[in-house]
Amino acid sequence: MRRNPQLNKNGELQHLLSIEGLPREVLERVLATADSFIGVTEREVKKVPLLRGKSVFNLFFEPSTRTRTTFEIAAKRLSADVINLNIAASSQSKGESLLDTVANLSAMQADIFVVRHGSSGAPFLIAQHVKPHEHVVNAGDGRHAHPTQGLLDLYTLRHYKKDFTRLTVAIVGDVLHSRVARSLIHGLTTLGTPEVRVIGPQTLIPTGVEALGVHVYRNMREGLKGCDAVVMLRLQNERMRGALLPSAQEFFKHYGLTADKLALAAPDAIVMHPGPMNRGVEIDSSVADGPHSVILPQVTFGIAVRMAVMSMVAGASA
Amino acid sequence: MRRNPQLNKNGELQHLLSIEGLPREVLERVLATADSFIGVTEREVKKVPLLRGKSVFNLFFEPSTRTRTTFEIAAKRLSADVINLNIAASSQSKGESLLDTVANLSAMQADIFVVRHGSSGAPFLIAQHVKPHEHVVNAGDGRHAHPTQGLLDLYTLRHYKKDFTRLTVAIVGDVLHSRVARSLIHGLTTLGTPEVRVIGPQTLIPTGVEALGVHVYRNMREGLKGCDAVVMLRLQNERMRGALLPSAQEFFKHYGLTADKLALAAPDAIVMHPGPMNRGVEIDSSVADGPHSVILPQVTFGIAVRMAVMSMVAGASA
Amino acid sequence: MRRNPQLNKNGELQHLLSIEGLPREVLERVLATADSFIGVTEREVKKVPLLRGKSVFNLFFEPSTRTRTTFEIAAKRLSADVINLNIAASSQSKGESLLDTVANLSAMQADIFVVRHGSSGAPFLIAQHVKPHEHVVNAGDGRHAHPTQGLLDLYTLRHYKKDFTRLTVAIVGDVLHSRVARSLIHGLTTLGTPEVRVIGPQTLIPTGVEALGVHVYRNMREGLKGCDAVVMLRLQNERMRGALLPSAQEFFKHYGLTADKLALAAPDAIVMHPGPMNRGVEIDSSVADGPHSVILPQVTFGIAVRMAVMSMVAGASA
Repeated sequence: MRRNPQLNKNGELQHLLSIEGLPREVLERVLATADSFIGVTEREVKKVPLLRGKSVFNLFFEPSTRTRTTFEIAAKRLSADVINLNIAASSQSKGESLLDTVANLSAMQADIFVVRHGSSGAPFLIAQHVKPHEHVVNAGDGRHAHPTQGLLDLYTLRHYKKDFTRLTVAIVGDVLHSRVARSLIHGLTTLGTPEVRVIGPQTLIPTGVEALGVHVYRNMREGLKGCDAVVMLRLQNERMRGALLPSAQEFFKHYGLTADKLALAAPDAIVMHPGPMNRGVEIDSSVADGPHSVILPQVTFGIAVRMAVMSMVAGASA
Repeated sequence: MRRNPQLNKNGELQHLLSIEGLPREVLERVLATADSFIGVTEREVKKVPLLRGKSVFNLFFEPSTRTRTTFEIAAKRLSADVINLNIAASSQSKGESLLDTVANLSAMQADIFVVRHGSSGAPFLIAQHVKPHEHVVNAGDGRHAHPTQGLLDLYTLRHYKKDFTRLTVAIVGDVLHSRVARSLIHGLTTLGTPEVRVIGPQTLIPTGVEALGVHVYRNMREGLKGCDAVVMLRLQNERMRGALLPSAQEFFKHYGLTADKLALAAPDAIVMHPGPMNRGVEIDSSVADGPHSVILPQVTFGIAVRMAVMSMVAGASA
Repeated sequence: MRRNPQLNKNGELQHLLSIEGLPREVLERVLATADSFIGVTEREVKKVPLLRGKSVFNLFFEPSTRTRTTFEIAAKRLSADVINLNIAASSQSKGESLLDTVANLSAMQADIFVVRHGSSGAPFLIAQHVKPHEHVVNAGDGRHAHPTQGLLDLYTLRHYKKDFTRLTVAIVGDVLHSRVARSLIHGLTTLGTPEVRVIGPQTLIPTGVEALGVHVYRNMREGLKGCDAVVMLRLQNERMRGALLPSAQEFFKHYGLTADKLALAAPDAIVMHPGPMNRGVEIDSSVADGPHSVILPQVTFGIAVRMAVMSMVAGASA
């Protein structure tokens, strides 16, 4: 049997490429390690020397200030040296291939590559070619996966709801184009969440998504009933221009999260969103800023989760 | 009475938003603190651990390599972790609001936001919404204020002239569009400067500027008479294209600082400029590089002043 | 006699502007110092405190992510504070002159300026104007020089071939536009390499290049005979659009390095390339990735060489 490319022979996390395929113990170890970093980020001196002298390369083939920033902060709080590379604007335009770019950076003695790429699978390809002591963390690849976002979502759910095995979670909106949704569904399933629902218009729900163990709802009110957590997805503006959706107003009417619709969920339901939000499109401001919202704590947990992932992979040899 | 939003209940500087409204003691404390950092920047190892483990976000909604660099250096010499965010190119284009952007960064456990924004008042808005332990430093907002530039101008004047209460200072050029001029005038007034003059063509002097306690001169030669310091302002090229000014040559003839005109000021007058200079437009090279010029020392003092401001706000709780 | 602008009165390297004119002992000292840093970059904690508290400004007037990254890593591994400045996008567009930009950064207490500029000689001009304790490292100026690339090439040759005085080295391709070629030729000559060849079409070989002590070959097969090292140059795509070259296919046929042509060199010949490679244009993938290729080790050595240069100049006073 071929070994999971994310784990070393001791079953330790060596790369983080996708939540899919990660065993429950590994997910739980990430969440537990993140716990220990929450304290660090609240201290006066928000630094630990775990990655001192290590080089972290933020390899962003797709621009994303927000995600790049979270990794940069996480790495700096681990005392790493961080190098930001916006690749769209450089070597790629000189016609250098992805693997040549990585081979070059690897020759500069890299320790961790944080990779965001428009093509699904790019971080896997890179992980196959790096040296044993080098580690790849997927920061979002095409429509495929965004595992650190999935992990921070899991961390948030565990923080507020403790026990995954008694949860009902709804994921709402543009599931079709969402790597966030995909990563979260795999994580929830692995951790034993009994009821995962996806809610959205037919055009934005992937065909055959039920095979992942989720229930599909077209009607949001029905889908929200009794949910313990509602995860709203960002609606990309460009979807509106195509034939997939009539208009932002129409979408908001049916799938925007309002206080009214949220009242159908459990009384202590939490509301999550990966950000950045389109207020008035997928979520109403009264909900985004309301008492059920844990959208900003998600961001805080995201730093701790990324510190956990980077410190774990850096500690695992091939 | 509503408390000054820049000061905490002990009267300590908590945010630096504008020189307007800052009491004399606070201005003097900044200048005295800057004194102590001049030594640091001249040392072999130009670092002090005052902000170790703190996160400084350089939030530039308007590009400015020069100002961003001064804050980046100042923060690094205080041992802070610095994250540069050029926001024009990121979240704002995704339609995220200013306050959502800041709330997100705040959730990443920020300590200091250095904010440059095209809209007057943006740093005030941010300061109203950050957490008690977070601090905002205005790095230039619209036409409103540029307080660290104003403070470094004050530092420079004090360094060379010692006593504000016996000074005559002339500010020359495009006062209308200058946040530098506005900040400096408030500072000079607060520190008791008896004679502040603004010199420029009618189209570039704000109506009613006399209310700030300054004297207006259209004729530069008259205005420079007996001045102890001449502060030249940068003339934005775009002004020339509009109806405000005939041409750069014409402007230079009337309001450009030449050795000839400077001879009318006090024999030991100093010449200042916030940079970058338009040589041959607002200032002649012989003056810019001449014995009266303190334009480069201003830059050096600017680092110390920014170190002072950041270390002071970081030490003040809400 | 005018002193070499790169050396101080004790003959120590004060600026690195060009390999041309550097005495053999200085080149050898750089290579020996780089040796000592190879160990550092292989350690768990890849840092030494040699430049702690020093400010290194990466002044890139021409974009180059790859070269900028190598300097940034080298400086951070020496514990310096690094400030990246992409000048095309800032002050220059505000009409500030090169020397004003540098004078300003110098007033911020710089220690080392790493300069990449489109105009030949720009780093020399800067070196003439900086303060005695400031140092300039040329990271590529126009078509003139790229001395750290030349030094890492020399380091690579010495690493694999030990003795320069018994070497035959061929430099192949667009010698005309290559600052890499120019720097390397001077270095090889200074270190006593008996046979340096340049190979390329007439349009891409500078007239009178023989004066540098090299032999010119139009026929690549002839030129490669018995070579101990083959240095392939990058072919800029823009050359193809002009009248200098018929097509990439045609170029590859005559001057692309294939296994077939390489077989004419010495059996233990090494193949070098400054990167980024145009596979299938100047070099075949089977050679680029083959057993003779030392292209990736060149990158690794490049970090050590840049650490050597920066630590040496920082230790030399004027």
